[in-house]
Amino acid sequence: MAVGEGALGELLPVPGVRLATVSAGIKKPGRRDLVLMALAPGSHTVGVFTRNAFCAAPVVVAREYLTATGQCPLYLLVNTGNANAGTGAAGLADARRCAQAVAELAGVAAEAVLPFSTGVIGEPLPVQKIVEALPNALAELRADGWLDAAHGIMTTDTRPKACSLRFTCGGQSYVLTGMAKGAGMLRPNMATMLAYIATDAAVAPELLQTLLSEAAELSFNRITVDGDTSTNDACMLVATGVAGNSMLDSTQAPLYTALRDALQKVCVTLAQGLVRDGEGASKFVTVQVNGGREEQECLDVAFTIAHSPLVKTALFASDPNWGRLLAAIGRAGLESLDVTRVGVYLNEVLIAEQGCRAASYTEAQGAAAMAAEDITIRIELQRGPATATVWTTDFSYDYVRINAEYRT
Amino acid sequence: MAVGEGALGELLPVPGVRLATVSAGIKKPGRRDLVLMALAPGSHTVGVFTRNAFCAAPVVVAREYLTATGQCPLYLLVNTGNANAGTGAAGLADARRCAQAVAELAGVAAEAVLPFSTGVIGEPLPVQKIVEALPNALAELRADGWLDAAHGIMTTDTRPKACSLRFTCGGQSYVLTGMAKGAGMLRPNMATMLAYIATDAAVAPELLQTLLSEAAELSFNRITVDGDTSTNDACMLVATGVAGNSMLDSTQAPLYTALRDALQKVCVTLAQGLVRDGEGASKFVTVQVNGGREEQECLDVAFTIAHSPLVKTALFASDPNWGRLLAAIGRAGLESLDVTRVGVYLNEVLIAEQGCRAASYTEAQGAAAMAAEDITIRIELQRGPATATVWTTDFSYDYVRINAEYRT
Repeated sequence: MAVGEGALGELLPVPGVRLATVSAGIKKPGRRDLVLMALAPGSHTVGVFTRNAFCAAPVVVAREYLTATGQCPLYLLVNTGNANAGTGAAGLADARRCAQAVAELAGVAAEAVLPFSTGVIGEPLPVQKIVEALPNALAELRADGWLDAAHGIMTTDTRPKACSLRFTCGGQSYVLTGMAKGAGMLRPNMATMLAYIATDAAVAPELLQTLLSEAAELSFNRITVDGDTSTNDACMLVATGVAGNSMLDSTQAPLYTALRDALQKVCVTLAQGLVRDGEGASKFVTVQVNGGREEQECLDVAFTIAHSPLVKTALFASDPNWGRLLAAIGRAGLESLDVTRVGVYLNEVLIAEQGCRAASYTEAQGAAAMAAEDITIRIELQRGPATATVWTTDFSYDYVRINAEYRT
Repeated sequence: MAVGEGALGELLPVPGVRLATVSAGIKKPGRRDLVLMALAPGSHTVGVFTRNAFCAAPVVVAREYLTATGQCPLYLLVNTGNANAGTGAAGLADARRCAQAVAELAGVAAEAVLPFSTGVIGEPLPVQKIVEALPNALAELRADGWLDAAHGIMTTDTRPKACSLRFTCGGQSYVLTGMAKGAGMLRPNMATMLAYIATDAAVAPELLQTLLSEAAELSFNRITVDGDTSTNDACMLVATGVAGNSMLDSTQAPLYTALRDALQKVCVTLAQGLVRDGEGASKFVTVQVNGGREEQECLDVAFTIAHSPLVKTALFASDPNWGRLLAAIGRAGLESLDVTRVGVYLNEVLIAEQGCRAASYTEAQGAAAMAAEDITIRIELQRGPATATVWTTDFSYDYVRINAEYRT
C-alpha cells in the first residue's frame, strides 16, 4: 500500500557515477540486495547521519572514513537485509571487512570505501556472502544503474524512490540524480533512511556539506511516519566534478543558488516519496503551521500533530475529528498560547477558530476534505511571522501488521 | 479487551461522601451517564488538571471555582458522553449552567459545585438533559454508591477502576477510596482521565494539594497509552474530616506518612488499572530505567520506549525485538550516553549489554518472556544513581479500530 502515483521520471546518469546491483543472498536467496556505487576520482562526498546514540556499525565506520582520514570516497557499498546495528565490536569489524574487500578488489585504500547497511537490527552481518558477491558487483558497474539500485536498497518499501533534475547555470548544463529508501522508523533527525544523491558539478567539500545539511533539514528532517529514529540513517551527496566547471566554493556564485534549489527539490521529492510509501500509509498528509513566533514552535506544533496516534487513526478513518487536532496543538508546549486565536483548516475548509468549531463548518465539508488521499492540515497560530511544514501519514491496521510481523 | 484480572476489591464508603449515578441520556438513551458526588460541609477538596492549553470548559470552570472563590466544594458533577471541549464561550456558559442548576436544587452557592465532562470533543453539551436528570441524582445520593459511580464515569473503558484502603494511625482508623476512568488519549501530565479520591481524614488544604500532586506525579503522570494528553483531565482529592482527627497540617505528623503511603498506593493501583484497560491493550508493560544521572533522564528513556510505535507493535506481536529498544534508548536525547554500558532486561532475562545482544541470550528466552501478559522492560544505564518507572501498553489492531471508529 502506498499513497498516490509512484511512477518515476527518467533517471539521468550522473557523469562520474556508476552503479551495480547484485544478489548476495543476505536474507533471501536471489534477492538483489547489494548495491555498489563507484565514484570518479576527484569526486567530493559529504553525508548527514543518524543522531541516534546507538548508531549502527557501518555509520560509525563511514563517518570515520569520511571525516577522519582525508581520503575521498571512491566506492559506496550498501546492503539490505541486515542493518549491522546492535552488533558491538564484531559489527564494526564486519563493516571494515566489507570495505576492505572492495578495496582489495579495486586496488584502492580501505578508507575510500564507505559501508552502509539497512535491515533487521542485531543479527551478525553475513560478511562472507557479501564478499563473494563483490567481484560480480564490480563487473556490473554502469552509468545507467540508478533504477536498479533504487530497487536494490529497498527493505519494506513497496516501490523505489528516485528522481532526476537537469539544471543550467552560465550556459552549462548539470545533472542531479538521487535515490532513497524508507519506510518505517521514520522521523526527523533522519529516518530509517538511506539516500544517495549525486551531481556532476564540481563543488568544494565544505560548501557541499552546507548544501546537504540545509536541504536535509528542509526535507528528510521534516517527515515522520512513526516518530522512531533509525540507527542506520545516512544521506550522502556526491559531486563528481566531471562537468568540468571551476570548483564551486562560494555561496555568492550563481551556481550555488542553482544547485541549492535543485538539491532541495530532489530532497523534498525523495522525502515525500518516503512518506507516500510509509509503512501502512493510506494518506499523504501535509501539516503546515503558520503564524508562529519562531520556526521552532511551528515545528513543535506540526510534529505534535504528525506524531499523535489519535490524529493518525482519525486520518486513517477519514474522520474530520478536529477535536484531536486542537488537543494536539494544546499539548505542543507553546508558551502562553492564546487558543482563541488559533484557526484550523482541512485543505481550504475552515474547521475551527477561536478555540472551537467554526460557525461556517459542516461535517459534510470535513468529510469531503478527508476523503482525499492527499490532505493538508493547516494551522494558523496568529502570533508571529514564522512558518513550517512537515509531511506524514496516517496510522492504519497495516502499520500494526507490518511492524508486528516484521521478523516472523 | 483488557489485561489481567479486573476484579475490584470491596469499595469502602467514605464518611462524608455520598454518590449518585443516573441516566441523563446524553449520548445513548438509558446509559447511566451522570454522576453526582455530595461532600459533607467542612470537606477540603484539591485537584490536579490537564496541562493542555486547549483545556475543556468544565476544567476552566472547576479550577476557577476551586481556586478563585475560596468556596469549599460541596458537589462534584460528572457527565460522560460529551467532553464540552473545543466549545468556546458557549461551552463555558454551559458548564456554569450545570453547576448553577445543582446549586439551586441543593440550596448552595454555584461556586460550591464543580463540573466535569468526558466524551467526544466539540459537540455542544446537552445542558437541558443534564438539568432534567439532577433531581433524580440528588434523591439517589448514598454512601455506598462508589461502584455504580465508577461505572458511570466510563467512556471507552471496558471495566471500572476503583479501590479502597483502610489505614490506621495513632489508634484511629481512616478510609481512602478512589475511582478513575481512562482509556485512550493517555499520557503523562494527566491523561484522558478523571479520578475522584476521598478520605475521611481531616487535612489542611495546602497539605492536601501537596499530597495529591506528589501522588499524581508518581502514578497518573507515569502512565501512557498513546502519548496524547486530553483536554479534560482532572484528578480530585477530597478530605471530609468526618473521622474527627485534629486537622492534619504538618508533614511531620505520623498521619501524614500514613496518608501519603495509602494515597500513593491507591493512585498507583488506579493508574495501572487505566493502563490495563488502555484502548486495545493486550499487554501490561512496566518500563523501569535504572542508573541514570538524574530522574528526568530515566523518565526520558522510559517514555521514549513507552511511546515508540515500533516497540509497542513488537510487544503486541510478543516479538523480543530488542533492536527497537536500543534504537529508542539511543534517541532519547541523553547527553554523552555510553551505549557500551547499557544493559537491557526483559523480565529477568538479560537480552542486550555493551550495545549489542548479550552472549548468554537466546531467542527462546526472549520469546518466553514476551509470551506473558505482564512484561517488565528494565534498562540499566550505569551512569548514576537515579531511577524511574512508567507503565504502558502495546499497540494493537484494536487500538486502531477503536480510534478509527470512535465517532462512527
